[in-house]
Amino acid sequence: MEEYRLLINTSDEKGLVYNISKVLFEHGLNIENNAEYVDNDTNKFFMRTVISGEIKREKLLSDIKKILPKDAQIKLSLKAKKNIVILVTKETHCLGDILIRYVDGELDANIKAVISNHNTLQNLVEKFDIPFKYVSHEDLTREEHEEKIIEVIKKFDYELIVLAKYMRILTPNFVRNFPKQILNIHHSFLPAFIGANPYKQAFQRGVKIIGATAHIVTDDLDEGPIISQDIVRVDHTYSWQNMREAGRNVEKIVLSNALNMFIKDKIFVHGNKTVIL
Amino acid sequence: MEEYRLLINTSDEKGLVYNISKVLFEHGLNIENNAEYVDNDTNKFFMRTVISGEIKREKLLSDIKKILPKDAQIKLSLKAKKNIVILVTKETHCLGDILIRYVDGELDANIKAVISNHNTLQNLVEKFDIPFKYVSHEDLTREEHEEKIIEVIKKFDYELIVLAKYMRILTPNFVRNFPKQILNIHHSFLPAFIGANPYKQAFQRGVKIIGATAHIVTDDLDEGPIISQDIVRVDHTYSWQNMREAGRNVEKIVLSNALNMFIKDKIFVHGNKTVIL
Amino acid sequence: MEEYRLLINTSDEKGLVYNISKVLFEHGLNIENNAEYVDNDTNKFFMRTVISGEIKREKLLSDIKKILPKDAQIKLSLKAKKNIVILVTKETHCLGDILIRYVDGELDANIKAVISNHNTLQNLVEKFDIPFKYVSHEDLTREEHEEKIIEVIKKFDYELIVLAKYMRILTPNFVRNFPKQILNIHHSFLPAFIGANPYKQAFQRGVKIIGATAHIVTDDLDEGPIISQDIVRVDHTYSWQNMREAGRNVEKIVLSNALNMFIKDKIFVHGNKTVIL
Amino acid sequence: MEEYRLLINTSDEKGLVYNISKVLFEHGLNIENNAEYVDNDTNKFFMRTVISGEIKREKLLSDIKKILPKDAQIKLSLKAKKNIVILVTKETHCLGDILIRYVDGELDANIKAVISNHNTLQNLVEKFDIPFKYVSHEDLTREEHEEKIIEVIKKFDYELIVLAKYMRILTPNFVRNFPKQILNIHHSFLPAFIGANPYKQAFQRGVKIIGATAHIVTDDLDEGPIISQDIVRVDHTYSWQNMREAGRNVEKIVLSNALNMFIKDKIFVHGNKTVIL
Repeated sequence: MEEYRLLINTSDEKGLVYNISKVLFEHGLNIENNAEYVDNDTNKFFMRTVISGEIKREKLLSDIKKILPKDAQIKLSLKAKKNIVILVTKETHCLGDILIRYVDGELDANIKAVISNHNTLQNLVEKFDIPFKYVSHEDLTREEHEEKIIEVIKKFDYELIVLAKYMRILTPNFVRNFPKQILNIHHSFLPAFIGANPYKQAFQRGVKIIGATAHIVTDDLDEGPIISQDIVRVDHTYSWQNMREAGRNVEKIVLSNALNMFIKDKIFVHGNKTVIL
Repeated sequence: MEEYRLLINTSDEKGLVYNISKVLFEHGLNIENNAEYVDNDTNKFFMRTVISGEIKREKLLSDIKKILPKDAQIKLSLKAKKNIVILVTKETHCLGDILIRYVDGELDANIKAVISNHNTLQNLVEKFDIPFKYVSHEDLTREEHEEKIIEVIKKFDYELIVLAKYMRILTPNFVRNFPKQILNIHHSFLPAFIGANPYKQAFQRGVKIIGATAHIVTDDLDEGPIISQDIVRVDHTYSWQNMREAGRNVEKIVLSNALNMFIKDKIFVHGNKTVIL
Repeated sequence: MEEYRLLINTSDEKGLVYNISKVLFEHGLNIENNAEYVDNDTNKFFMRTVISGEIKREKLLSDIKKILPKDAQIKLSLKAKKNIVILVTKETHCLGDILIRYVDGELDANIKAVISNHNTLQNLVEKFDIPFKYVSHEDLTREEHEEKIIEVIKKFDYELIVLAKYMRILTPNFVRNFPKQILNIHHSFLPAFIGANPYKQAFQRGVKIIGATAHIVTDDLDEGPIISQDIVRVDHTYSWQNMREAGRNVEKIVLSNALNMFIKDKIFVHGNKTVIL
Repeated sequence: MEEYRLLINTSDEKGLVYNISKVLFEHGLNIENNAEYVDNDTNKFFMRTVISGEIKREKLLSDIKKILPKDAQIKLSLKAKKNIVILVTKETHCLGDILIRYVDGELDANIKAVISNHNTLQNLVEKFDIPFKYVSHEDLTREEHEEKIIEVIKKFDYELIVLAKYMRILTPNFVRNFPKQILNIHHSFLPAFIGANPYKQAFQRGVKIIGATAHIVTDDLDEGPIISQDIVRVDHTYSWQNMREAGRNVEKIVLSNALNMFIKDKIFVHGNKTVIL
């Protein structure tokens, strides 16, 4: 029996849970798992329900739509492998972590391609029989390079673009092509140390903890909705290179955790925040 | 408008969410917050719903009972200060943390009394105008001493007994007097280091992390359902006394967090585990 | 036998450890504990040595001075209770944590006075038989108020000023009166959320982790050398008030830990950083 | 200029630091980094010094030996890649993490071979051009199988055997062949959940935190000196399989960190504990 995830995001009103569960009940579906959240500040209702049973997709969506406020966003997602495309530059650790999970069968995703502005990681990627696309940015404007990257991405089936340490700043135009579909790992504990070389910044500030942040990419660099963060302790003996090395463990785990949440349809984007159910 | 917490714990069946939310809807109540969990292994359903509106208590309980399986346990708890009695021996840190939260208004509870087998903490407790009851165990059997303690406790209105480093082993008879009403802090990361002087045990084993565990007290010493745990890192420079000192911070925070969960009616006991909603 | 802590901070050169340990050996002193750190970037050498034995203070300092580079800073500190003065505004948790450690004998310090611009905490402080000095800032300029505070502080023997949530911005003049002697707790994970109401800022940014930072106060607000930091996880269900409540546990523990490091003479200020030995 | 690590482990006596630093000074060597620890309980002195300069190895060792107590253990280790052999069974994550660090150049080691009692991971290992040796345990007694494994290991140059989830119990005879040279990752927060399937045990006990432990292997299963531990939070929604999945992240990071400490000669074995300098 197949499992579906029903995601509802709407303005709140009395009886929502009752009305939604009524539709599911009348369709004869089982609720395997249910989580709701009401943001009282903005009067928004979020619900993620895992349902099983024989689903008549169109009928179900239409019946649910009827009983929800007009602004409701509804998503019905089959529990199945998601297609992802990964963008990288030169660093091994985040990509490597994803590849090992992939080969292990732990990652519930199909990696359709890895795309890079350098060919440093080609050898590693091809060990795993995954297409590697080298799109150099040399002699190209940022816009021209992005056009080429977009073109390559769109050749593949994708539901998510994972920036696994892709070290190029993205233009709003690029982001607009993949709304809420780009996942980035930033190598600092945002909003601390926005911009270039956060580990050097952290070193110069003399912090005792460093971190990493996975977020959805929006127009504003390093300002997108945060999905997941984690930290690691450092001390005065750490050079910025030591901090970078210690940070790699956090970066890769935070990115993989955020990727898992995406794959499991657990993330709602709510303004510049996320609701994780 | 008053807020209530409705806690339901029952065997699972299709339509539970629908049927419960229907009753709430028909009573004209608002769902402020709702969390459910289904344990598929044991086929058990848990729900905690925060509701507001004009509540007809008896009618509501009876209507909900009707639509639930026979084994259902239902609890309807007004959001209000809980009455607690605290048992201590000689250590200051856990009690002190609770007292400071109390005086701050942060603790949503009335401390009805502090009871101890020593008078070490009398001075501290009385600073806060809280009754201190000294019940020495000298010249008494364990049973006799417990009888006296039970007698003192029962003079007060209480919903929870907090063992804030009460260093006496409790007999099953004592525990039976307060079923699921005793909260204990154990000064180790259970199930490691059960029994006496866990910090000495941890030191001798050479662990690199120590911890603390808050749990509901049952007949089996240190075996009750765990509510909350936390840890702190140590290294080879720590004597067992240093470990104890470092552990105090963890003990008091873990105990206070677990106490908050109890006060907010967030804890379900499920066999020898807890479900926290 | 008394214990001393010898702290040396100097430019690095070959043979320092040898020469220093030679002097200690010739004085017949035992090294109970020794830690060194060389910062190769700035060519600075730091050493903290715990020594015991019969100490001829002046002779020892003079002998050590002879074998060190000219820029050397030497401190010889008897292991004994430090005198501290605490500044607060209205919040209970940081002060309360210190008071409980104090009454427990866990804090190796004499609290000479608590000073505040409000009288909110007077009652609490006086429970512990500690002088409380209320210095209202009403109808005073910042400078006038600070003058009064400085005057009150200087009436007491003090080695450290602890800002336990003192919510007033300090002028450079105030800070200059107590160089490297003011310890502050900032209620964010610096350098994130500098300035007013960090929890509101954290809430608006949608972070998944919040934190606190203890630092030495310098002229630049929230920019002083960091001693200690810690974090706690939050999620979308946290209002900024919930974040503030969760943050309190971190604030008080981080402040108490930093205070302990100060009391144990473990902190070197090195530019805008700290070296903790 | 080459760097060496000098490790000294001896009974403590007055003047050790002076005498050792004197020898280093007379040899014209630079101390790049120095850490000491005295265990007052057992009167043992530990020192790890990073030295640079022109080293006359035999003369230096002999000069140091002269000024140390008779029971002193001295090790002088060139800063260079260490040779390691890895034993695995079927799980990918720990091995995969090491392989990615290896291909990245982050791991300061030569992986001489991966040996397994199953051929599951052969394909992965050979992607990285590392010899994979399949030594099935089928139809063999434990002793016979171990003899074969020992024989294979001894064909390679090795300084450390890494058990990266090698799921066979080792006999004392095996361990005796590689004293203090076997590093193991145990998938629990030792000493909790010794033995088989710790995640199932953790699930049944209802813990709120799970962990992993890297340790040196000695005769007693899961009782060897602990090098490193870390944890991850879980809750009632985790099945034991979910715990296992969450635990993998901790296992691989803890193992890699412990491996780094070994490679950097930071670990002293002190009874059934470790001193990490």
